[in-house]
Amino acid sequence: QISDMAFGIRELSKKLVQIKLKLNVRNIFILGKAHDETLISHSRETTEWLLSKEPHYRVYVEDTLEQNRIFDSEGLLNDNPDFRGRLRFWSKKLCDERPQTFDIVLALGGDGTVLYASWLFQRIVPPVLAFSLGSLGFLTKFDYELYPQTLSRAFGEGITVSLRLRFEATIMRSQSNKKTDNKRDLVEELIGEESEDHHTHVPDGTHNILNEVVLDRGPNPTMSTMELFGDDEHFTTVQADGICVSTPTGSTAYNLAAGGSLCHPDNPVILVTAICAHTLSFRPIILPDTIVLRAGVPYDARTSSWASFDGKERTELRPGDYVTISASRYPFPSVLPLDRKRQDWVDSISRTLQWNSRQRQKSYKEWTA
Amino acid sequence: QISDMAFGIRELSKKLVQIKLKLNVRNIFILGKAHDETLISHSRETTEWLLSKEPHYRVYVEDTLEQNRIFDSEGLLNDNPDFRGRLRFWSKKLCDERPQTFDIVLALGGDGTVLYASWLFQRIVPPVLAFSLGSLGFLTKFDYELYPQTLSRAFGEGITVSLRLRFEATIMRSQSNKKTDNKRDLVEELIGEESEDHHTHVPDGTHNILNEVVLDRGPNPTMSTMELFGDDEHFTTVQADGICVSTPTGSTAYNLAAGGSLCHPDNPVILVTAICAHTLSFRPIILPDTIVLRAGVPYDARTSSWASFDGKERTELRPGDYVTISASRYPFPSVLPLDRKRQDWVDSISRTLQWNSRQRQKSYKEWTA
Amino acid sequence: QISDMAFGIRELSKKLVQIKLKLNVRNIFILGKAHDETLISHSRETTEWLLSKEPHYRVYVEDTLEQNRIFDSEGLLNDNPDFRGRLRFWSKKLCDERPQTFDIVLALGGDGTVLYASWLFQRIVPPVLAFSLGSLGFLTKFDYELYPQTLSRAFGEGITVSLRLRFEATIMRSQSNKKTDNKRDLVEELIGEESEDHHTHVPDGTHNILNEVVLDRGPNPTMSTMELFGDDEHFTTVQADGICVSTPTGSTAYNLAAGGSLCHPDNPVILVTAICAHTLSFRPIILPDTIVLRAGVPYDARTSSWASFDGKERTELRPGDYVTISASRYPFPSVLPLDRKRQDWVDSISRTLQWNSRQRQKSYKEWTA
Amino acid sequence: QISDMAFGIRELSKKLVQIKLKLNVRNIFILGKAHDETLISHSRETTEWLLSKEPHYRVYVEDTLEQNRIFDSEGLLNDNPDFRGRLRFWSKKLCDERPQTFDIVLALGGDGTVLYASWLFQRIVPPVLAFSLGSLGFLTKFDYELYPQTLSRAFGEGITVSLRLRFEATIMRSQSNKKTDNKRDLVEELIGEESEDHHTHVPDGTHNILNEVVLDRGPNPTMSTMELFGDDEHFTTVQADGICVSTPTGSTAYNLAAGGSLCHPDNPVILVTAICAHTLSFRPIILPDTIVLRAGVPYDARTSSWASFDGKERTELRPGDYVTISASRYPFPSVLPLDRKRQDWVDSISRTLQWNSRQRQKSYKEWTA
Repeated sequence: QISDMAFGIRELSKKLVQIKLKLNVRNIFILGKAHDETLISHSRETTEWLLSKEPHYRVYVEDTLEQNRIFDSEGLLNDNPDFRGRLRFWSKKLCDERPQTFDIVLALGGDGTVLYASWLFQRIVPPVLAFSLGSLGFLTKFDYELYPQTLSRAFGEGITVSLRLRFEATIMRSQSNKKTDNKRDLVEELIGEESEDHHTHVPDGTHNILNEVVLDRGPNPTMSTMELFGDDEHFTTVQADGICVSTPTGSTAYNLAAGGSLCHPDNPVILVTAICAHTLSFRPIILPDTIVLRAGVPYDARTSSWASFDGKERTELRPGDYVTISASRYPFPSVLPLDRKRQDWVDSISRTLQWNSRQRQKSYKEWTA
Repeated sequence: QISDMAFGIRELSKKLVQIKLKLNVRNIFILGKAHDETLISHSRETTEWLLSKEPHYRVYVEDTLEQNRIFDSEGLLNDNPDFRGRLRFWSKKLCDERPQTFDIVLALGGDGTVLYASWLFQRIVPPVLAFSLGSLGFLTKFDYELYPQTLSRAFGEGITVSLRLRFEATIMRSQSNKKTDNKRDLVEELIGEESEDHHTHVPDGTHNILNEVVLDRGPNPTMSTMELFGDDEHFTTVQADGICVSTPTGSTAYNLAAGGSLCHPDNPVILVTAICAHTLSFRPIILPDTIVLRAGVPYDARTSSWASFDGKERTELRPGDYVTISASRYPFPSVLPLDRKRQDWVDSISRTLQWNSRQRQKSYKEWTA
Repeated sequence: QISDMAFGIRELSKKLVQIKLKLNVRNIFILGKAHDETLISHSRETTEWLLSKEPHYRVYVEDTLEQNRIFDSEGLLNDNPDFRGRLRFWSKKLCDERPQTFDIVLALGGDGTVLYASWLFQRIVPPVLAFSLGSLGFLTKFDYELYPQTLSRAFGEGITVSLRLRFEATIMRSQSNKKTDNKRDLVEELIGEESEDHHTHVPDGTHNILNEVVLDRGPNPTMSTMELFGDDEHFTTVQADGICVSTPTGSTAYNLAAGGSLCHPDNPVILVTAICAHTLSFRPIILPDTIVLRAGVPYDARTSSWASFDGKERTELRPGDYVTISASRYPFPSVLPLDRKRQDWVDSISRTLQWNSRQRQKSYKEWTA
Repeated sequence: QISDMAFGIRELSKKLVQIKLKLNVRNIFILGKAHDETLISHSRETTEWLLSKEPHYRVYVEDTLEQNRIFDSEGLLNDNPDFRGRLRFWSKKLCDERPQTFDIVLALGGDGTVLYASWLFQRIVPPVLAFSLGSLGFLTKFDYELYPQTLSRAFGEGITVSLRLRFEATIMRSQSNKKTDNKRDLVEELIGEESEDHHTHVPDGTHNILNEVVLDRGPNPTMSTMELFGDDEHFTTVQADGICVSTPTGSTAYNLAAGGSLCHPDNPVILVTAICAHTLSFRPIILPDTIVLRAGVPYDARTSSWASFDGKERTELRPGDYVTISASRYPFPSVLPLDRKRQDWVDSISRTLQWNSRQRQKSYKEWTA
């Protein structure tokens, strides 16, 4: 009967990673890179189309567009007096404080814009429907050219979202401690007898990230030494240029460059990959997302390491500091293509890595046959 | 609330992969390689110890030992007349037909013996407690030297088992079809319009495997071409020496040699790794274990491929044949160390890959610092 | 002054790898796969063109074409009576015994045809000018469409050949030796005190190869164990699916699939790459071509290994057998493109691995920026 | 006869890489890390031993030791009045200006000390005999414990040196050019029509390096884009964290961490390895050391890159700057072990990567057998 329970859980998990939602759209959030002139025009066009379509729609664009010459909000309102009160402006503060306001986020740009959406919404994230202006990406699954059809259908028939695992990463700063400073040991403090002492470290900022946390040697010419912990266990001491802790979504980004595997986004796992490991025995590791991972700089390290979160917010980690990484309570709901929901991941991979599903790849070894 | 459900599932999964069991031991199954003289002596010693310990224990040893000179069952029974009726002999047939008979399997040997246990019990597997005669392995977690203490405690206090994912792999043979034989297309037959036609292939044997299914070029000097499918999607055409489809348990075996990642056994995933891919764009892939994978030989392939299951049972796959691989309903319950249950995987990895958890690894790059 | 000598040698080497030759063409050797109908037509066309061009040219085609319906030698001679005596037929035997007969080899087909030329000419190889029927390859550097211009220019102005390193590989068979058979040790026999005893092994065939020697487990499901020696030193015991010993020319073939590096053909090196090494500490090795390499099956191996030479001639190596591999005295003169001689290698690599020299490659990580 | 010439060159090269030298020792250079107290004691001990041994020996130690309390030169001279005039002090300036002064360099420490010797002697390098204080390394081949025997024998019988390839690396700075600054193209300037214009760049420092030149993204969180040229050919645009250009000696250092091959030090090659390439089609490349390599930052790059030389001297490369790398006229003469000269490299590799030449490595896959 144990087998049967396991089987049931498997079925349940399968259903939960892709969720169907009927939308009752009132407040639409539009996101585009504010310094890109083409994107501003597209934002304006989409805004106008939406506000014209339904009188109860409210559209939020970035507050920097309020005075933007290209967006020309004044002109838009003058031409369409009924848009007044329905064209609104969002700020980072609004995203932080009232994320529930928004029924859907329309992201315009590339995969970088989707990462920006993840950064804006650090807690609850509205469903994100991402349009690509050029070729489709791993996260931008809709062709902007077809936005009217796409939105009409999504708002009418509903959407399916893929709940993407995010990590919650917290920087923990070592607190100076006069008595013991010259013989402190990170392993002891985290999992040894001293681990009951909660005064050794204090939190210094938490990030919800969609792709990866990277700890590396930053501007140092020498390699880093890092201690890696899983729950209350010391995994290993990593000697490398750095370490990449990636979500399944991030597996096609830096993780791949560092030699990690491609990972389906539905897998509840954490990918740990060393960057230029200086020992031959390190290999990329796949851990369950139920593990709490900690990676830190030993007290006797000669140099600092640097942490970055989704490629941003680079922060120095001095000896004794560490980062806690665990599954976030706030996943990222990415709207799937309306037609090829199930095949979406394979489609992305094939497109981006140039796997030709039907046509045989030309093998560089063919000539030996 | 979606987030909360996802969170709940995560917690539930966490509990299910490691299960506590109270044992009510009556029938004990002893497994050792029958051709190894030392192992036969150890089997005899353990049998004697068990039968002497509790009058209601029954011990099953392999039927080849009944007439074995070293095991000397006759001598054992003569010296201990009360063992009569309690020393029994198992056969492969008994394992197939009445696996529920056994309360526990004691495996003596190395990790290969544990694979043999998986092969014997193709459906329900009793909990397997594996003793190592030499150094501990990934699956042999108990030191044989300490067997009396280990068994007394396990039978008295209960055990914790790790439910290891197994795959069910079925060979599907292409059926000859006079009319269309010279223009058949595997992709069409499996996921195209012809996929409704269930007469194209017939099953030819199913294996429950614990480590991996390997499809490779076998004795052919040239590379293989294989079609890879996930559910109803054609993933890619693989041009390689072969392809390794591994469970998390198998991730430290052939998968690692082929360049795959180390994978925690609790992850519900399938690892797909090409063996010497002849295209640069292939990378190891981590898929959910809810996917049904199919890998086959295209009809226009110049040569056959070979399938092997846990390194055994090598079978030819002719053009048009394929193998279906999916999560088995019958996981493999591996008894965890009584004391370091949670750390077990990290301990195995550290031991085997020579990660020194506490001591710094000597880096080959140290001298450049 | 030592530095200066080293510098001089470097300059000299640079000049020797690419050699200019003025041709005095009389005997032309045409090579194409005899079972490919298109190639037979092309062979016929080229033969006719050559024999018509200069009355002192003699053209040799494969003897299987003498009675070939498509080649129709009778028709050719009937239409052109002056071809009589100048259209000749070659056999493998002629290549072995009088390779100096031929002033140039014209290979039609793909890189496989060039390998076939290397196999035909086991000692001295005439310059090989290789036409591709489809896209250019690593060794087929001329577009067949342009053959009249190419040949007129090459025969008139001369050619530049790249002298490609070949290996001489000799199979050494262990000789049975009643007295010591059950305690023989390959390492002792090859580099230990017994190495003076030349009766332990006898040669069994020598191959000059252009790409690689592969030793692997062949049809065995288990890995191979092989002893690897360089000159009189035991390098290491390799536990792997096999071992690939590649020339620089072969570096883009099987070596690349096994994880080896790309190697410029002018480098005087041997590339040794394990195929799915079962130990983490093995890495591809680049050795000087002045080393004599020996790779063999230890006497206590449980299974045989198989050796193959340029992907052909698969031979079983029983325990105790080994293969000696060293630089051949007979390099392979590959005719370089008439215009981009120096850039030839970079051109091949860019073309085949899809490096776009000028255009930026689309990076799969671009979206994170 | 071409084959024969090639064969002769091969033989000549073989002789040149290892050169026997008879020493007529007068001036001995001692090198140790000046801040390590143990090393200072050892330097003092060796100095005393040498000056006592032969009255015509002169010993040079670093000028920072003249006033060093532990070295205590005053005490040494007071105790041994005949050492006066024979104990001398070297400075970086002396190494630059009169390297011929020294008959031999004795390096005490680890492989890092040997790199330091290479840095000190930027042109002619005296033979370097390197003692290890701990375990032997790739470059420290003598056990310090045995220094009296080692030196007596080396000075008496002569030494064999391995001439290690060094690179000469020159930073080339782009010169501002008002007219064309916003449309400059590095590829055009280096190999296009503008390559005749020698005013585009000026040299800014040359380094002779023994291990590697690394160009990387330094403190930038995003990847680097670099243009790579060989002689007058544009190889490819590299999108990666960086690029490592290594000598054979450096192949076991950063090159190995970045995924490059092990390379025998006698090979006349350059190893180019991308660091975390962001495209799947890049593989480590082995080039002849007769090639002049150039790697630079394109004018339209968003960020700078950083160059470092043997892990030191990190320098910013702004868009338009590049580094020229070619074989140096000044190789590094490393004294080989007196007894196992030929096996030296294999010994180093086995020792450091834990290959056990005789004993079978424990395979992590053994258990599947």
